Amino acid sequence: MMGKRIHNFNAGPAALPLPVLEEIQQEFLDYKGSGMSITEVSHRSKWFDDIINEAITRTKRLLNIGDDFQVLFIQGGASLQFCMVPMNLSLTGKPVEYVNTGTWSTKAIKEAQIQGKNVQVIASSEDKYFSYIPTAYDIDENAAYLHFTSNNTIKGTQWAEFPEAGKVPLVCDMSSDFMSRPFDAGPFGLIYAGAQKNIGPAGAAMVIIRNDMLERVPQDIPTMLKYTTFSDKNSMFNTPPCFIIYTVNLVLKWIEETIGGLENMAEINREKAKFLYGFIDQSGFYRGTAAEDSRSLMNVTFRLPDEVLEAKFVEAALKEGLGGLKGHRSVGGCRASIYNATGVEAVKELVNFMKAFEMREG
Amino acid sequence: MMGKRIHNFNAGPAALPLPVLEEIQQEFLDYKGSGMSITEVSHRSKWFDDIINEAITRTKRLLNIGDDFQVLFIQGGASLQFCMVPMNLSLTGKPVEYVNTGTWSTKAIKEAQIQGKNVQVIASSEDKYFSYIPTAYDIDENAAYLHFTSNNTIKGTQWAEFPEAGKVPLVCDMSSDFMSRPFDAGPFGLIYAGAQKNIGPAGAAMVIIRNDMLERVPQDIPTMLKYTTFSDKNSMFNTPPCFIIYTVNLVLKWIEETIGGLENMAEINREKAKFLYGFIDQSGFYRGTAAEDSRSLMNVTFRLPDEVLEAKFVEAALKEGLGGLKGHRSVGGCRASIYNATGVEAVKELVNFMKAFEMREG
Repeated sequence: MMGKRIHNFNAGPAALPLPVLEEIQQEFLDYKGSGMSITEVSHRSKWFDDIINEAITRTKRLLNIGDDFQVLFIQGGASLQFCMVPMNLSLTGKPVEYVNTGTWSTKAIKEAQIQGKNVQVIASSEDKYFSYIPTAYDIDENAAYLHFTSNNTIKGTQWAEFPEAGKVPLVCDMSSDFMSRPFDAGPFGLIYAGAQKNIGPAGAAMVIIRNDMLERVPQDIPTMLKYTTFSDKNSMFNTPPCFIIYTVNLVLKWIEETIGGLENMAEINREKAKFLYGFIDQSGFYRGTAAEDSRSLMNVTFRLPDEVLEAKFVEAALKEGLGGLKGHRSVGGCRASIYNATGVEAVKELVNFMKAFEMREG
Repeated sequence: MMGKRIHNFNAGPAALPLPVLEEIQQEFLDYKGSGMSITEVSHRSKWFDDIINEAITRTKRLLNIGDDFQVLFIQGGASLQFCMVPMNLSLTGKPVEYVNTGTWSTKAIKEAQIQGKNVQVIASSEDKYFSYIPTAYDIDENAAYLHFTSNNTIKGTQWAEFPEAGKVPLVCDMSSDFMSRPFDAGPFGLIYAGAQKNIGPAGAAMVIIRNDMLERVPQDIPTMLKYTTFSDKNSMFNTPPCFIIYTVNLVLKWIEETIGGLENMAEINREKAKFLYGFIDQSGFYRGTAAEDSRSLMNVTFRLPDEVLEAKFVEAALKEGLGGLKGHRSVGGCRASIYNATGVEAVKELVNFMKAFEMREG
């Protein structure tokens, strides 16, 4: 019954590692001899306790973080975090600072403004259609936090180095490059990532919060919007999204045990991006849209000579088993999302197709 | 590799229909020729559009509701709805009214109070440990809404008939008996249900909202907490929990096409409950804990002569392939949750085991 699997360049929900999908399929009617599907197992059982604790342990090991951080799973995606961050982490009399690098940063800023916070946008790349990552900005050392978006899926830009903010805690929407490379978590007060790019299916955000940030959580906000509700109960104040967390754990296991950790993962990701950008740069037919020093290793955005050719390109690619190459509806063009689970082979096949398409249509 | 599946009496996450699980397993690596797992398919694709629209259409058909209602999927479970309901539906100068029938109602009330709403608890069964559904209460016809919990998983009680509130819109947490019986949705302003009891895996609440309620949604609350954000974008303002919605649709299809709709579903559920309560009532060994006229058809709570026997019962049952019979940790005792997907055969096997256990230990 199974057809041919395509190479999946979707921006999210995105490709998952095939061995992970196969393991889920294999044990879907009977999770580890429980006689139940993982979708039927109680979140108060030993089975699920082991899963969530393993996912947390793997996260801490992969990121090299200790007990000064809590790893939480919260429903609602990064979009709910846009409002939870200022609601929980702002401080009376202090500004909250943001760098605006595109659609997602803009939404994060808006949610802080809706709550009447003292929002300072200290840098923005809006002047050039968000095609670059700003490098010049002044951080108020009195700020409650500095928020930025590490990777911008729509415009295809990424922070190569994170901002230095001294004692001001960094807060980062890392949805689309989380677990794609190692980094020093020390300066971060909070990191959040919607699962559906690099670590799992849609339906949860992973939130990593430094213990001192938990002291900021106000008492009088709704229970389900307090980080302490999740940290106090190991993300099980109410029923968590069990299947999503189970899958995230399997993806993290794949990164640890099959790939060999984040250094290796980053090396593979650099290789894929270098190969694809290298091809685009030497071509007169395809044109990258992001500034060279701000290019994303996750989302490679490019244009063809005209929109008719772009539509034709996306359609012809799908016929060759290369899916998800249409750019975001807000900007058009083409985009190849090459997250962790999209392998070197997929990128090579894409480049072969791009060459052939250029020969035929260029 | 597959072991024997148990009969699953978990309170939630709970049993799902076996044919649904088998269909998911079958197409898990390649959803309908897409070449992708359903966990990898974009929510902006035709594939997912068809899924969410089919789930909505099935819901409306099963409940016999028209275009005056919107069917939404929101992450965060019923617990997030506890805060969203008063945040969106309260009205200046009018009280919000609640009936308190146990743990979940109590939490819903607390979230309205946290927000400083004018909360009136018009009836409560706390005087008798929430073992019954109150029948005497006065509804203020000026109230913004009347909230109640249709089925109480912990204490094993259920509203046989819904309250009559005249022009005051009913708001109901229907998490644990949603889609178990037909009802007239007309008097309801809003119905919400965590998926993980009767309609799917944990990770989404279905929210059914009457159009006139959408007019109450304030402008100045966070985007992800506004019902209009979800109704304006067919629940896809941000990435929805695709796998959960996909599974919910398959469960709804099973109710429609295999069971034959909610009348049939209710008949089967009545039969199961009658059989189990009938056995308990004639036994001097087992003792039901809910008042007879308030008994839940979904969660059958009972005690044995002592706690040692109860622990032995739960353990011995599991060895016989009957899982999840432990009562909620807050009350102890035993509980058999017999939701839609737990069939007549499972209940018969449970009663056979209960008889044998009584013979042996009684």
